[in-house]
Amino acid sequence: MRGYLSPRARAPGARLLPGSAVLGPSMVGEGSIVDCCVVIGYPRRALLRAAGGLEELDAGSAGARLGRGVVVRSGTVVYETAVLGDGVETGHHAVIREETVVGEGTIVGSHAVLDGRVRVGRRVRIETGAYLPPGTVVGDDVFIGPRAVFTNDRYPPSRRLKGVVVEEGAVIGANATILPGVRIGRRAVVAAGSVVTRDVPPETVVAGAPARPVMSLGEYLEKRRRWELGEA
Amino acid sequence: MRGYLSPRARAPGARLLPGSAVLGPSMVGEGSIVDCCVVIGYPRRALLRAAGGLEELDAGSAGARLGRGVVVRSGTVVYETAVLGDGVETGHHAVIREETVVGEGTIVGSHAVLDGRVRVGRRVRIETGAYLPPGTVVGDDVFIGPRAVFTNDRYPPSRRLKGVVVEEGAVIGANATILPGVRIGRRAVVAAGSVVTRDVPPETVVAGAPARPVMSLGEYLEKRRRWELGEA
Amino acid sequence: MRGYLSPRARAPGARLLPGSAVLGPSMVGEGSIVDCCVVIGYPRRALLRAAGGLEELDAGSAGARLGRGVVVRSGTVVYETAVLGDGVETGHHAVIREETVVGEGTIVGSHAVLDGRVRVGRRVRIETGAYLPPGTVVGDDVFIGPRAVFTNDRYPPSRRLKGVVVEEGAVIGANATILPGVRIGRRAVVAAGSVVTRDVPPETVVAGAPARPVMSLGEYLEKRRRWELGEA
Repeated sequence: MRGYLSPRARAPGARLLPGSAVLGPSMVGEGSIVDCCVVIGYPRRALLRAAGGLEELDAGSAGARLGRGVVVRSGTVVYETAVLGDGVETGHHAVIREETVVGEGTIVGSHAVLDGRVRVGRRVRIETGAYLPPGTVVGDDVFIGPRAVFTNDRYPPSRRLKGVVVEEGAVIGANATILPGVRIGRRAVVAAGSVVTRDVPPETVVAGAPARPVMSLGEYLEKRRRWELGEA
Repeated sequence: MRGYLSPRARAPGARLLPGSAVLGPSMVGEGSIVDCCVVIGYPRRALLRAAGGLEELDAGSAGARLGRGVVVRSGTVVYETAVLGDGVETGHHAVIREETVVGEGTIVGSHAVLDGRVRVGRRVRIETGAYLPPGTVVGDDVFIGPRAVFTNDRYPPSRRLKGVVVEEGAVIGANATILPGVRIGRRAVVAAGSVVTRDVPPETVVAGAPARPVMSLGEYLEKRRRWELGEA
Repeated sequence: MRGYLSPRARAPGARLLPGSAVLGPSMVGEGSIVDCCVVIGYPRRALLRAAGGLEELDAGSAGARLGRGVVVRSGTVVYETAVLGDGVETGHHAVIREETVVGEGTIVGSHAVLDGRVRVGRRVRIETGAYLPPGTVVGDDVFIGPRAVFTNDRYPPSRRLKGVVVEEGAVIGANATILPGVRIGRRAVVAAGSVVTRDVPPETVVAGAPARPVMSLGEYLEKRRRWELGEA
């Protein structure tokens, strides 16, 4: 008893648990795990609307590409043309849509949504329920807290979408809201619950709604050091 | 191989993918797609508690009604007595509970929850993870941004619930919080991350926590026009 | 047709619907319902990575323990070592991770995530999409509104995590953000959309970002009384 593997797909040395489906010419790397109720290579809208059944969906899917040692937990959906690097790990019920690239060692939490045309670097932690719309670009080693919400439409609903850019090593706090086109600088920190309406300079900590600078990265790291020692 | 179709249900010209279930006297219109791990006609609490198995759940379900060309993506649950108009489309893992009516051409995003007794108009876009509790009323052509949260209990937990009313053509920004009983006027705009504690007049843009008027709809549309031209 | 029950599990008088799985030496109490696409006793990371298939996952799982009359709705995942008391009820697609204890009669809403090492009291209402990270402690009779986000890392990403403590009878409003280590006092109330950065004294109502006291519990209850009479 195992999952459905398309005749066009390849998954040597991967484990497909019962109830999973790998569609189209997908590639799943060695040591990867595709859990129950997961679909890899999920069809884009036009194909879904046109296909008569699973066979046609499978035949039409362009497939997804998963590296080695990837873990896709139950209920997660990975669309066709998505690419997940080696060691990527997802929680449950995440949605990773088309033309999205996720770098090596990145974690995509439960219920997180990468809503198509998203680029995420390596060793990024995307916590539970974070939302990244089309056009979002996230650098390496970024931390995105639970339920953080990124946007891409400054005057919805408009015809011009502009994603948020998060540079290397930045930290986005829980339940923060980031407005369209904003750039979060290298190693900058956005406090939990903030609403970020403007670019955040590198190595700057911002908080509030709208978010304003509240301290430097140096001060933040000193506070973290004391916090880790249990002093604060 | 296809989904489970109740002997009482009708789905002529619809496609039920493997792992789907259509319970009770549900009707699924022509050209509709019911994806894997979807349940149509999901039983209310009392029935779920009483039934001995799938057969009894099926026998007890009052069914749901889906129009033509409806797309219900994987993991979504549509409760008995819900009604989805022609061309309604859902993302993944959405929950549409009992006595909810969704108008023609409306989109219900992934993880969005319409938590029972919700009325949504036509051509509405409910983005990923939006939450609409019982009593919410949404007019035609409304845009509800990702993770927007509506409420219905002003002094929780109380015995009186009063839903939010969103009039035709209004826009609710991402991760906004709307307090119980608030009325969002026709073509009004709520900025992303706002907390709306009072009624918003028609054609007014509000922002902040608590949200205050910041510009008129005319100014907003002029800004949108420039934004779409790439000037801002 | 019914779900998968591990040879080591016991579920006398419980109903396992098709597509459900109960792994390891799990115990499911009489009158409980395990819905489709639910996993009870879901394996921790190390086991998931090491196991060759469902049989090994089942053999390695330490199991979960569910009391009597528990309802676990479709798509919900309950990890090994989790304990759910009598009468606990979950919505759809909730995630309850390892070493988490949920008291009798508590409701865990759809998409809510108890992210491991969480302790929740009795008769608590955790509404849709609430997020509780490791170390969170919630007393009896607490109300946690939809999409409320708790945190545990004051200077992410740090090596010291400190969960939020919510004392008996407190109310957390919708989409509120609670910072790490904060203590919400007995019967205190946090308004919807607030960002709570400091401890909240018992029987105090706070609102805003950062949240400040706005009234006493006595005033709040008087307002509730009038609201329930339809006066406000």
